[in-house]
Amino acid sequence: MRPVSQTSANASTAEPVPLDRAKQLAAALLSERGEASGALVARQLHDVLHALDASERHGFQHYLATEFRPDKAALRAAAERYLADSTAEAAAALAQAADPPRQELLRRMNMAPGGTSALIAMRSEIGPRLRGEPELKLLDADLRHLLASWFNRGFLELRRIDWQSPAAVLEKLIAYEAVHEIKGWDDLRRRLAPDRRCFAFFHPALPDEPLIFVEVALVEGLAAAVQPLLSRDTDEHARRAQAERADTAIFYSISNCQDGLRGVSFGNFLIKQVVEELQAEFPQLRRFSTLSPVPGFRRWLGQELTCDRDTNLLRDVAADGWWQDPAQSEKLRPGLMRLCARYLTRPFVPGSRIDPVARFHLGNGARLERINWLGDTAPRAMAESCGIMVNYLYDHDSIEENHEHFVRGEPIVRSHDVDSLLANK
Amino acid sequence: MRPVSQTSANASTAEPVPLDRAKQLAAALLSERGEASGALVARQLHDVLHALDASERHGFQHYLATEFRPDKAALRAAAERYLADSTAEAAAALAQAADPPRQELLRRMNMAPGGTSALIAMRSEIGPRLRGEPELKLLDADLRHLLASWFNRGFLELRRIDWQSPAAVLEKLIAYEAVHEIKGWDDLRRRLAPDRRCFAFFHPALPDEPLIFVEVALVEGLAAAVQPLLSRDTDEHARRAQAERADTAIFYSISNCQDGLRGVSFGNFLIKQVVEELQAEFPQLRRFSTLSPVPGFRRWLGQELTCDRDTNLLRDVAADGWWQDPAQSEKLRPGLMRLCARYLTRPFVPGSRIDPVARFHLGNGARLERINWLGDTAPRAMAESCGIMVNYLYDHDSIEENHEHFVRGEPIVRSHDVDSLLANK
Amino acid sequence: MRPVSQTSANASTAEPVPLDRAKQLAAALLSERGEASGALVARQLHDVLHALDASERHGFQHYLATEFRPDKAALRAAAERYLADSTAEAAAALAQAADPPRQELLRRMNMAPGGTSALIAMRSEIGPRLRGEPELKLLDADLRHLLASWFNRGFLELRRIDWQSPAAVLEKLIAYEAVHEIKGWDDLRRRLAPDRRCFAFFHPALPDEPLIFVEVALVEGLAAAVQPLLSRDTDEHARRAQAERADTAIFYSISNCQDGLRGVSFGNFLIKQVVEELQAEFPQLRRFSTLSPVPGFRRWLGQELTCDRDTNLLRDVAADGWWQDPAQSEKLRPGLMRLCARYLTRPFVPGSRIDPVARFHLGNGARLERINWLGDTAPRAMAESCGIMVNYLYDHDSIEENHEHFVRGEPIVRSHDVDSLLANK
Amino acid sequence: MRPVSQTSANASTAEPVPLDRAKQLAAALLSERGEASGALVARQLHDVLHALDASERHGFQHYLATEFRPDKAALRAAAERYLADSTAEAAAALAQAADPPRQELLRRMNMAPGGTSALIAMRSEIGPRLRGEPELKLLDADLRHLLASWFNRGFLELRRIDWQSPAAVLEKLIAYEAVHEIKGWDDLRRRLAPDRRCFAFFHPALPDEPLIFVEVALVEGLAAAVQPLLSRDTDEHARRAQAERADTAIFYSISNCQDGLRGVSFGNFLIKQVVEELQAEFPQLRRFSTLSPVPGFRRWLGQELTCDRDTNLLRDVAADGWWQDPAQSEKLRPGLMRLCARYLTRPFVPGSRIDPVARFHLGNGARLERINWLGDTAPRAMAESCGIMVNYLYDHDSIEENHEHFVRGEPIVRSHDVDSLLANK
Repeated sequence: MRPVSQTSANASTAEPVPLDRAKQLAAALLSERGEASGALVARQLHDVLHALDASERHGFQHYLATEFRPDKAALRAAAERYLADSTAEAAAALAQAADPPRQELLRRMNMAPGGTSALIAMRSEIGPRLRGEPELKLLDADLRHLLASWFNRGFLELRRIDWQSPAAVLEKLIAYEAVHEIKGWDDLRRRLAPDRRCFAFFHPALPDEPLIFVEVALVEGLAAAVQPLLSRDTDEHARRAQAERADTAIFYSISNCQDGLRGVSFGNFLIKQVVEELQAEFPQLRRFSTLSPVPGFRRWLGQELTCDRDTNLLRDVAADGWWQDPAQSEKLRPGLMRLCARYLTRPFVPGSRIDPVARFHLGNGARLERINWLGDTAPRAMAESCGIMVNYLYDHDSIEENHEHFVRGEPIVRSHDVDSLLANK
Repeated sequence: MRPVSQTSANASTAEPVPLDRAKQLAAALLSERGEASGALVARQLHDVLHALDASERHGFQHYLATEFRPDKAALRAAAERYLADSTAEAAAALAQAADPPRQELLRRMNMAPGGTSALIAMRSEIGPRLRGEPELKLLDADLRHLLASWFNRGFLELRRIDWQSPAAVLEKLIAYEAVHEIKGWDDLRRRLAPDRRCFAFFHPALPDEPLIFVEVALVEGLAAAVQPLLSRDTDEHARRAQAERADTAIFYSISNCQDGLRGVSFGNFLIKQVVEELQAEFPQLRRFSTLSPVPGFRRWLGQELTCDRDTNLLRDVAADGWWQDPAQSEKLRPGLMRLCARYLTRPFVPGSRIDPVARFHLGNGARLERINWLGDTAPRAMAESCGIMVNYLYDHDSIEENHEHFVRGEPIVRSHDVDSLLANK
Repeated sequence: MRPVSQTSANASTAEPVPLDRAKQLAAALLSERGEASGALVARQLHDVLHALDASERHGFQHYLATEFRPDKAALRAAAERYLADSTAEAAAALAQAADPPRQELLRRMNMAPGGTSALIAMRSEIGPRLRGEPELKLLDADLRHLLASWFNRGFLELRRIDWQSPAAVLEKLIAYEAVHEIKGWDDLRRRLAPDRRCFAFFHPALPDEPLIFVEVALVEGLAAAVQPLLSRDTDEHARRAQAERADTAIFYSISNCQDGLRGVSFGNFLIKQVVEELQAEFPQLRRFSTLSPVPGFRRWLGQELTCDRDTNLLRDVAADGWWQDPAQSEKLRPGLMRLCARYLTRPFVPGSRIDPVARFHLGNGARLERINWLGDTAPRAMAESCGIMVNYLYDHDSIEENHEHFVRGEPIVRSHDVDSLLANK
Repeated sequence: MRPVSQTSANASTAEPVPLDRAKQLAAALLSERGEASGALVARQLHDVLHALDASERHGFQHYLATEFRPDKAALRAAAERYLADSTAEAAAALAQAADPPRQELLRRMNMAPGGTSALIAMRSEIGPRLRGEPELKLLDADLRHLLASWFNRGFLELRRIDWQSPAAVLEKLIAYEAVHEIKGWDDLRRRLAPDRRCFAFFHPALPDEPLIFVEVALVEGLAAAVQPLLSRDTDEHARRAQAERADTAIFYSISNCQDGLRGVSFGNFLIKQVVEELQAEFPQLRRFSTLSPVPGFRRWLGQELTCDRDTNLLRDVAADGWWQDPAQSEKLRPGLMRLCARYLTRPFVPGSRIDPVARFHLGNGARLERINWLGDTAPRAMAESCGIMVNYLYDHDSIEENHEHFVRGEPIVRSHDVDSLLANK
C-alpha cells in the first residue's frame, strides 16, 4: 500500500531504475530487514517485478541465478570437516552450508500475496530458455525443489468441476485442455453433462487455478473411440439416465495446467483418487479405464519399417484421408494393429523410447487392455497415432503388482486381446 | 481402506510387530514403491504409527533420526569435487548430495490425509527429549526445516474468530490461551464480544487448528491494566457502542498454539496484518498497542539487587498481597517502576538476557510506550512481573526505523514517559 | 441505526411520542408511501418498535389488532353480491374484500432486515395474553396464517448440527432443549459425539435460529432407558466404533424452539427426513424409534384410580424415591406398566385427553412398540410419567397405514409386547 | 424418482391415466392424508405432473382453477352472519370461509423439493392463455397472491454476480437480458469486468435463478450513449483503473427474469439497495443514474403528430439509417429532442399512457435528468425510441419527495436541462 510514498520520498535522491530497485529489494529481503518486514518487502519486490518488461525480467532472473550462492569459505570448511570425519552431524552441517541462500530468498518471495503464482510464472518463463542459457538451471532446480515441496500431495485439494463451478475456473479448462480441444462454452458444457465427471487438483495458494484435471465419461462397456464421447448430445434427462446405466468410467483426457510446475507429478495421485470418488458415487461401476492416444507410434513406425513392404505401408499411411475409404482402412488394419501392439509391448532397450502416455499409465500400475482401430480420427491423432487409441485399465487389486512388474522391467502386463494381436502374422 | 486385507494376506507368514512394520513401511515409502503408491503407503504408515504406544513411537523416532542419512560415498565424492573446483554447479551438486533422504521421507509421509498434523505431533513429542537424546536433533532440524517451508506466510490464512466460528475451533482457544487463562465458554464469549476482536492464522492442512491467535480489545485511551479488559460485562448493546467509540486497539494476549511449530515465527506477521484489518474495519482507530507482561523482570531484580536497601525491596516484593495495601503499594511504586524502565532499556551486554516479550515486540518495530503500575495482579503476573504491564506501541510510520535501531543495538526506542521514569532518582 | 438525527431534527416541532410515531409509521407503511419506500419505512418502524418498552409494545399490538380491518362498506357489498349470485368470481371478490389489511401491513413489516424475527417475537409476546385480552386473537391469527405460509416445508432447510457448527447456533440448543436439559457445553458436546446425530430445520430469514431440532443416539438394540444415553462418555474412538456397530437410531429428544411459531408444525417432516438422512449415512440401521416420556400418565392415574386398592398405589407412587428401593419398585411395576399400556391405548372418548406425545407420534404414523419400566428417573419424569418411557417405532412401510388407522379412530397400532401387558391381570 | 414401482404394483387393477392420477393426488394432498404425509404426496404429484404433456397440463390447470372453491353453504352462512352483525370477529370468520382451498392446496404443492419452481413455471404457462381462458384467472390470482407473499423483500437475497459466479447462474444472464442483448460468453465477460457491477435478487428456494438483475457501469460523468458501454474493451488493468476514477454509476440495464413472478415487483428495492452497495464499495461515487430507453416515444409521436409539418418529420424518422447522415441527424435533432421532453413531462390525462420506463423510475423517486440524442442506435432502439436515451437520476436526498410529487400527479421533477428543451421552439 505504501510503496508509492516511499518511492516518492526517495525521488530527490537518484531514483534507481526498476531492475536495480528489484535487485535491491531482493537483497533486502534476504537481509535482517527482510526478517522483520519480510511480507512487506516481498510485496514491494513483486510490485516492482510486475512492472518490468521482458528483458528486465530476464535480467532479474539472471541475477537470481548467479547470485545468492552458498558462502564459499564456509562451504569449503564444511566439506573439509566432513571429509575429515564423516559423522551424521558433519553431514548435516555440510548440508546446511550447501543450502543455497537463493532458496531462502525464494521462500521469502513467497510471503507476499500472489507470491506463489509469481514464482510459478517465473519458472514457466525460464523453461524455454534453459537450453540456451544454462546458468538459469540452478534457479530452475531451486524453484523445482521448493515447488515440489509446497505442492506436496498432502496440500492438494481434489475438487469436482461442474456447471456450478465459477466461470473463472471453467475458462481455465478451455485454455488448458491439452488432449481433445474444448471448442468454447457449449462444448465445455457437454464435457460437464450429467454423464461426465471432471476433477482437478487445486492448491490453496492458487484458488482459481486447476493444477491438473481429468475428464471422465460414464459409459456402458469399454469405449473404443473418442469422437462419440465428444459429440454434443446435451439432453439432460438422457445424460442422467446414461450415468445411471453406466458400468465403466473412461478417463479420456488428462491435462497438466501449470508449465511452471513441470516435473512435479500429480497425475498418478489424481487418477487413483478419482477412481475412489467415482466408486463412492456410482457403486455400480465395474471398470475404470483410459482411452488414450499413442503419440509416439507413427514416429517409431518410420524408424522401424525399412524393407520394401514396409515402405508401402508407410506410403499408404501418409496418404490423405485413407481412413475414410473402408477398403483401404480394412487393408491397413491388421498390420498397423499388430505393429502398435508390438510398439507398446517391446522390451526396454537402451536408446529406444517408450511411448510417453504408455509409460505414465503402465508406470502407475495400469494394464494394457485393448488397442482400438480408428479410435480418434482427428488430424493430430491420425498424424501421431495413426488414429489408434488404447485402453489402459486401472484395476484396484493389481495396480501395485503391475507397477512392480513395470519397475523391474518385466514384460508389459496386458490382456489376452493384446496377446492375440501380437500372435497374428 | 484396504490395509486390512493386505495384512491378513501376510498372516500366514510371520506377521511383523508393529514397530517393525512401521520401519518397513517407512523404507518402502522412500523406495520406488513409494514413488508409485506414495499416498497409499503413507496412509498405511500413519495407520500403523497411530496404533503404536509411546515407547514404540520413540523407537520409530530414533529410527528416523539415525537412518536415512545421505549416501556417504556420494557425499564424500561431491565434497571432494567441490574442493577441487568450487563452481556454482559443484556447489549445487554438493547440496544435492548432502540433502538428507530423511527430508524426502518426511515429505512423503506428508502425502497422507492427516500427515502434516502427525508430523507436527511428532516434533512436539520429541521436543522435551532433545536435551537427553541429542541424536534426535537431526530429526528435529529436518522437521523444522520442512515445517518452516510449508508454513510460509504465503500459505497462511488470517481468519477472524467470533461467536459464529465452529465450536471445534473455539475450544482450541480455551485450550491454547497462554497469557490470560480463558475460564470456560462464558469467559470465551466475553473475549469475542462486539468490542473485542480475535484473529488467528490457519493453514489449509490443519483446518480447525489455529497456529497463533491474538486477542484485541477496542477501548478509549491506552489501557493500563488487564483486569478491566477481562471482566465479564456482556451487554451486547453497550459492547457495540464501546466498539464505535474506541480510538485504541489493545493487543492484550497473543498465544502460539502448536508446540510442534516452535521456531517457526508467525507473531510478527500476525500483529501487522491484524493492524491492517482493524484499520479497515474501524477507520477511527488512532493507536495500536499491546498490554504485555514483563515476565523476566522479577528474576532480573533478584540478580540485580544486591545492596542492603535492595534486599529490603526484594523482601517487600516477596511479601504476600502487598499490592492490596495502598500505603505499601505507593511506597514500592517509584522504585519498581524506575527499575523496570531500566530493565527494559538496558543496553545489550553479552551474557545478559533481554526480556522475551520485549525482544519480540521491540524486534518487530514497536516502541516502548508506557510502563503501568499494577497492570495485572493475577498471581503469576505478580510473581514474574511484580504486577507491572507494558504498552508496546505499533506505529505504522516508524515500525521499520524502530526495527533497524533495534537490530543495530542502538538505544531502545521509547516515549518521554519512559524517559522520565529513567530520570527519576 | 436508530434514526436519532432525524428525530432530533424534528425536535422543534412537536415530536411524537414513540408509540405515536410507531403508529404513524405503520399507517404510512400501508399507504402509497409504503409502496414506494416500503423497505425503508419498515426499517424505521422496527427501529422505533425496538426502543419501545413493554407497555408501549402492548399498546402497539392492540393498535394492530383493532385497526386495519377490511373496509366495512366494501365487505358488506361483496357479501351481498355473493349471496345474490354465488359464482366463483363473486367468491373470489368476497375473499379479496375480506382479506384484512392487517395481513398486508404485516407482510410489509417483513420487508426490513430482521422483520421476520421481530414478527415472531411479537407473536411470542402476545401468546400468554390471548386469554386475558381476546381482542389480540385476530392479530395472532393473522400472524399465524402468514408464518405458516412463510415457513412452508419447501422453504425449510434441514441442517446437521455438530461440533463444527457455530457457537451462536449451539448455544441455542442449550437454551431450547425442552425434554432432557443440556447442562452446559461439555454436556452438549456429548450430545454431538460421533455416535449421536442432531438435526434441525432452519429458515433462510433466521440463519442462526433452529426452528425445531431432534437428538438421535445410534445404539445396538432398542434403548429402554435415557440415562445411559445422557451419560458423559466422550472417548472419541469408542463413540465412533459404537456408531459403526449401531443397528438402531433412537430419537430421544425433540424440541420446538420458537414460541412465536406455535401451531406451525415441523416435527412430522423433521422425523421423516432425518430417517432418510440416517438411512443414507448408515445403511446398516434397521430400526428407527423414539424413546419418549408419557407426560400425561400420572395425571390420568389420579383421575382414573378411585377405589381403595388404587389409593394405595397412588400413595406408593407419591412416596419419595420409591424407585430406588428394588423391592418396592418390583412391587409397583406390573400394575403401573399395565395401567400405562391402558392409558396409551384407550379408545377416544369425548372429554378424555390423549397423551400429547403419543398423539404426536401415533398421528405421524408411528407404532406403539414398547413400554419401558424406569426409563427415566429424573424428577420431572418421575412426577409426570412415573419414570416410564415409551418407544414409538417409525417403520417406513407402515407409516401411512398407521396414520390412516389413527385418523379413523381405529385401535392404536401396537406390538405384541404391549398387547401382552394389556392382557395381564 | 418416478414412483414406477408403485405404479406397476397397481398395474393389475385399472391404472389411472396420468391426468387422473394427478387429480387424485391433488385431492389427496388437501385431505387428511396430505396433512400427515404432505411432503411425500406433494413429491408424487410433481413427479406425475412432470411427465404430463402440454395438453394434460392444461387439463390439470383447469381442474385447479375450477375446483377447490370455498364451501358454498359455509361461505353463504358466514356472509349472512357478517351482514347481520359486522363485528371484527364476523369479518375474520368470513375471511376464513372465503379463503379458497386452492391456496392451501398450492401451499402444500410447495412442500416438495422443486415445488416453488414448478408453481412459478405453471403461472408462466397460464399467462399467455388468460385472455382466451378467463376461468384460469382465479388460479392466476391465487398463485400471484402466494408468490407475492413468499417473495417478500425480507426473503430475498441480494448477490453480486461476477466472473466467480457459477456458470449455471451466468448462463441465465445471457438468457434473460431483456434490454441490451448479451452476445455469448465473451460479451458477458465484458459486462462483468472490473469497471462493471451486476447485482441480482435471489430467493432461497431458487438458488441458481436470478429473479431480477441490474447491470451497472462505473464511469466518469453522466453517460449519454450506451454503445460505448457495451464495447468489448477487456484490458483488466485499464478497467480496474477506470473503476477507481469513476464518479458516476450508470444503471444501463435492468431485467426481470421470471415470467411466473409478473406483477410481483422487485426493481424498486433492487435499485435502492444497489445504490447502497456501490456507495459502500466506492465512496467516491457522486451520482447514480440510469441510461434508459424511451420505448413508448415513437408510438406516441405517431399519435401526436398530425399536421403537415409533422407528417414530414414522421416520414424522415421512418427513413432507413437517417441517423448515419450527420446533416439529416442535426436537422431532426431539435424537434425530436423537444418532443421527447414533452412526451416525458406531459401531465397525466386519463386515456393517455405514460412511458413504462419513465413510470417505473419516476415512480421510484428518480428525477428526469437528461435526454440524450442518439444514445442507442441499435435497430430496436431506433424503432421505439428514435435512438433517444434518458438519464433518470437517483438522488438519495430527494427520492422520497420526488416520489410524493409523482404520486400526487404534480409536474414531473426534472433538471434545468430538460426545462431548456421544453422552452425551445
